[in-house]
Amino acid sequence: MASERELIALIARRVAPPPGVLLGIGDDAALLAPPESTRALAASCDALVEGSHFLAGATPEDLGWKALAVNLSDLAAMGAQPRHALLALTLPDGDVGWLQRFLDGFLALAEVQGVTLVGGNLARGPRQIAVTVLGEVAPARALRRSGGRPGDRLWVTGCLGGAAAALAAERHGREAPAFWRRRLWRPEPRVGAGLALAGLARAAIDLSDGLLADLMHLCEASGVGAELDLATLPLAPGLEGLAKEERLRLALSGGEDYELLLALPPGLDPRASCPPEIPLTAIGYLSESPGIRLREAEGAVREVGAAGWDHFATTGNDRS
Amino acid sequence: MASERELIALIARRVAPPPGVLLGIGDDAALLAPPESTRALAASCDALVEGSHFLAGATPEDLGWKALAVNLSDLAAMGAQPRHALLALTLPDGDVGWLQRFLDGFLALAEVQGVTLVGGNLARGPRQIAVTVLGEVAPARALRRSGGRPGDRLWVTGCLGGAAAALAAERHGREAPAFWRRRLWRPEPRVGAGLALAGLARAAIDLSDGLLADLMHLCEASGVGAELDLATLPLAPGLEGLAKEERLRLALSGGEDYELLLALPPGLDPRASCPPEIPLTAIGYLSESPGIRLREAEGAVREVGAAGWDHFATTGNDRS
Repeated sequence: MASERELIALIARRVAPPPGVLLGIGDDAALLAPPESTRALAASCDALVEGSHFLAGATPEDLGWKALAVNLSDLAAMGAQPRHALLALTLPDGDVGWLQRFLDGFLALAEVQGVTLVGGNLARGPRQIAVTVLGEVAPARALRRSGGRPGDRLWVTGCLGGAAAALAAERHGREAPAFWRRRLWRPEPRVGAGLALAGLARAAIDLSDGLLADLMHLCEASGVGAELDLATLPLAPGLEGLAKEERLRLALSGGEDYELLLALPPGLDPRASCPPEIPLTAIGYLSESPGIRLREAEGAVREVGAAGWDHFATTGNDRS
Repeated sequence: MASERELIALIARRVAPPPGVLLGIGDDAALLAPPESTRALAASCDALVEGSHFLAGATPEDLGWKALAVNLSDLAAMGAQPRHALLALTLPDGDVGWLQRFLDGFLALAEVQGVTLVGGNLARGPRQIAVTVLGEVAPARALRRSGGRPGDRLWVTGCLGGAAAALAAERHGREAPAFWRRRLWRPEPRVGAGLALAGLARAAIDLSDGLLADLMHLCEASGVGAELDLATLPLAPGLEGLAKEERLRLALSGGEDYELLLALPPGLDPRASCPPEIPLTAIGYLSESPGIRLREAEGAVREVGAAGWDHFATTGNDRS
């Protein structure tokens, strides 16, 4: 069992702070060069908790990647450029092997996204991972939840339901296909899409609780309702083999997809501004009347009320 | 049981963001006006974990206060002005009464220190509280651990051993005197002292692990050793009734005091610069030779090696 000082030293050795980090891991606080005065600091924190997220299928590398990814997804949903991360890690023991593998995942994503780990905390207890991320964005371009207007088109990046399908398989003791597992444990935060659409989209949110729940958050913040065209939902590959209701349940309420949901003025096609490797699909629009309506391929419309998507009591987690 | 959205709304209703908070609780990330370009952003995070810290004696108000206090203590030890906090709270259920009382403590200290809660996360699981604090300081004035030089005098704010005495009493099922309990559960982060001594002290650290352990951290970062004059240690009131070895153990190794330990050039008296209500005591000096020497009132000297103060394996927590 390694000591706490040894573990901190081990982490510090794996991080090379860039010039904007005036003081990194190892003092009482990190010191960071601030954003330019024309830009705002964007800050978010999110935790992965033993039991509610750490299923048997997750490797330490997966947990490291995902703990950072869910936070970067929040910055992506603001249109912010991620810069720094802090990591508060609670572990049942000082297992160097576990920590090294966790860092393999965490730092791999940090490198992809140009994020520097600048500080944190190690404690002993039930395993838990709390990450705070800092980024920057020009305030007038930031993607808030509250800017949507009736008539805006709704767009979603990537595909839906794959993470929930992997989770369902793992819960039933079945091995999930590799693609679903990647959706669940290696989500790719849509930072590039957020940056490209900052200043263009009127509202955005990332999909953590599930499309319906997160759309409802956006609608409530914007004071609008929404209509989704179910036939257009970009289902994750492999879902087509499932029964229709199950397929829809995973795509609409599954959660953990970490895609972006965006509202754009009707004439504006976000695909013209986004990196071509990020799929974007129009799935509906915002409306005056509150609530969410689901339009079936056959034309039938299901009305969805405001209740039913609070996950505190059921899955025990909400990411904001 | 309240829903997660209700709990977030409850928190947001209790927070009135000042103008520098462009976007507070309720979106994907907070948006904050950055520090002036001449100042650095100071960032730190720290967690309280069920089991290692949440003893029976703590009320929800205590936990709220302390969770923020231990973080502000880190900013104090940098000489930084605290500005914002993020709160990642994991709770076994959505108990509104518990959360309200927790916020009573958290927000009371936030108000005293001019800190705004700007965001966070709620999750379900074993109770855990991770807080991130953001502040600012001119980089050249920041109090790092690494600036100490041989000959610097060591000063400590406040008094030592009271928090550990309360912890020891609670662990043995005895009621601790109110003053000790206050030291344990309502530590007052020495933000005023840190601000007053930024640019004057050569090095600083806050006392979380205990005087010897934290002095060792400072010595290692500064590449020096230290000598402490045991007769000068400012013991917490009530410790004088204990046996000498127990008294010393609490003051030297007890931890959780959240005072500042500072190294100042020998001719500089920090009391001339500090708010008069903050006690400051000279307790020794930094030296060339590594390790820590403890000088007894009778003149005898105990040598203390570099080992023995890593608390990861024993108390299961280290604050950095």
